[in-house]
Amino acid sequence: MRIIVVGAEGDIGKAACKELGSRHEIIRAGRSSGDVRVDMADRASVEAMYAKCGAVDAVISTAGNVHFARLGEYTEETFMLGLRHKVMGQVNLVLAGLAIVSEGGSFTLTSGVLDREPIRMGVAGAAANGAVGGFVLGAAIEMPRGLRLNAVSPGLLDVSVPRYGRWFPGHEPVSSKRVGLAYARSVEGAMTGKVIIVE
Amino acid sequence: MRIIVVGAEGDIGKAACKELGSRHEIIRAGRSSGDVRVDMADRASVEAMYAKCGAVDAVISTAGNVHFARLGEYTEETFMLGLRHKVMGQVNLVLAGLAIVSEGGSFTLTSGVLDREPIRMGVAGAAANGAVGGFVLGAAIEMPRGLRLNAVSPGLLDVSVPRYGRWFPGHEPVSSKRVGLAYARSVEGAMTGKVIIVE
Ligand SMILES: NC(=O)c1ccc[n+]([C@@H]2O[C@H](COP(=O)([O-])OP(=O)(O)OC[C@H]3O[C@@H](n4cnc5c(N)ncnc54)[C@H](OP(=O)(O)O)[C@@H]3O)[C@@H](O)[C@H]2O)c1
Ligand SMILES: NC(=O)c1ccc[n+]([C@@H]2O[C@H](COP(=O)([O-])OP(=O)(O)OC[C@H]3O[C@@H](n4cnc5c(N)ncnc54)[C@H](OP(=O)(O)O)[C@@H]3O)[C@@H](O)[C@H]2O)c1
Repeated sequence: MRIIVVGAEGDIGKAACKELGSRHEIIRAGRSSGDVRVDMADRASVEAMYAKCGAVDAVISTAGNVHFARLGEYTEETFMLGLRHKVMGQVNLVLAGLAIVSEGGSFTLTSGVLDREPIRMGVAGAAANGAVGGFVLGAAIEMPRGLRLNAVSPGLLDVSVPRYGRWFPGHEPVSSKRVGLAYARSVEGAMTGKVIIVE
Repeated sequence: MRIIVVGAEGDIGKAACKELGSRHEIIRAGRSSGDVRVDMADRASVEAMYAKCGAVDAVISTAGNVHFARLGEYTEETFMLGLRHKVMGQVNLVLAGLAIVSEGGSFTLTSGVLDREPIRMGVAGAAANGAVGGFVLGAAIEMPRGLRLNAVSPGLLDVSVPRYGRWFPGHEPVSSKRVGLAYARSVEGAMTGKVIIVE
């Protein structure tokens, strides 16, 4: 398959590319890195990415910023950041890709543990993850041409512990290998409308 | 208790007011109706509402527009509408109310069935509901001064069948009485961080 991975140079992106890269052709996309530059929070930029890449069989997103802050410190601006980027950005990849991805192909988005096990300062992430889950469930039933749609929802990755570990007290890190396998299960398997939890 | 109900003149708002109105003082708020006018999608307007109302013990939101459309027909604009109104609007009520609602008081938001049982044309609602659920779970653990936070997630109300019934084939309408009770359970009970399903 030909697979676009948006966020390929990130911690999760690398795990997904490592698992799928030996069997498939990967097009790495990112805001400031990769084969193709894209800002998924901007629909026109997503459309330009698809126009550049040509035919693809699967799209993976392992991107989506959210702002971390104490509950009382969020402004509309900082709270909306996650809704614009992690939610609307990933939704843009699906909406703009509906007519692009080949028949029977798939979209695999990324959610995360925060809407199952909340942490302090993580409420914008919890909301964004919940929205991604709702979107996946809702959109899967309307996908044209046998297209599938899932999200992977990992716990804190082993490789991300140095960056984020102190915000996740007592969380058992999950192996990047297992996270990579979850993306393969979505892309190479047959399921749709699922949030694949990796813990 | 003194309770602000944002969206009091709507189908769900009326059900909540009917249940709680005999035991509590209700301040009805809405964009174009009620005792106080507010656009909850605008944080400044929410702050002005709180300044006008004075001390309150509970805030209920039964408001939150989303745009209904076929999956392939959403633009960034129409999809974001639900994220700005149903999500950010309800989040604004909580964030701006953290220092206002009296100790041990509560916020009760409204979600809905679409992120459990998706319908055609309902994907923006599914995403918004998922976000509200994630927000409630995430924010409940950071609430100051013993404040509580829940959401009620009803199926299609009996009174709303004439407006929305044809979009919900096979859905068994839920009684407005039972929906009203769910708001009472949140406001008068002790739970927090819950999505209260009424089906
Ligand atoms: N790491 C974890 O342990 C973990 C666990 C669960 C969930 N998650 C979630 O998974 C997602 C990725 O996490 P990560 O730790 O792998 O992130 P990361 O290491 O920071 O990598 C994110 C990648 O996505 C790209 N990106 C960000 N915004 C973009 C946009 N608008 N358009 C295109 N590309 C964009 C970034 O490129 P630029 O740097 O060029 O912008 C970067 O390559 C986040 O939503 C995070 O919440 C992470
Ligand atoms: N009805 C159902 O069967 C059902 C079932 C499950 C979930 N829900 C959800 O529950 C919520 C309310 O549904 P409903 O059917 O009761 O709606 P509704 O009858 O249309 O009433 C909504 C009320 O909220 C007010 N409102 C809307 N946006 C507002 C804003 N930005 N700021 C302040 N007030 C605002 C409206 O006032 P104006 O008209 O003046 O704007 C109106 O009074 C929606 O999010 C809906 O998705 C409904």
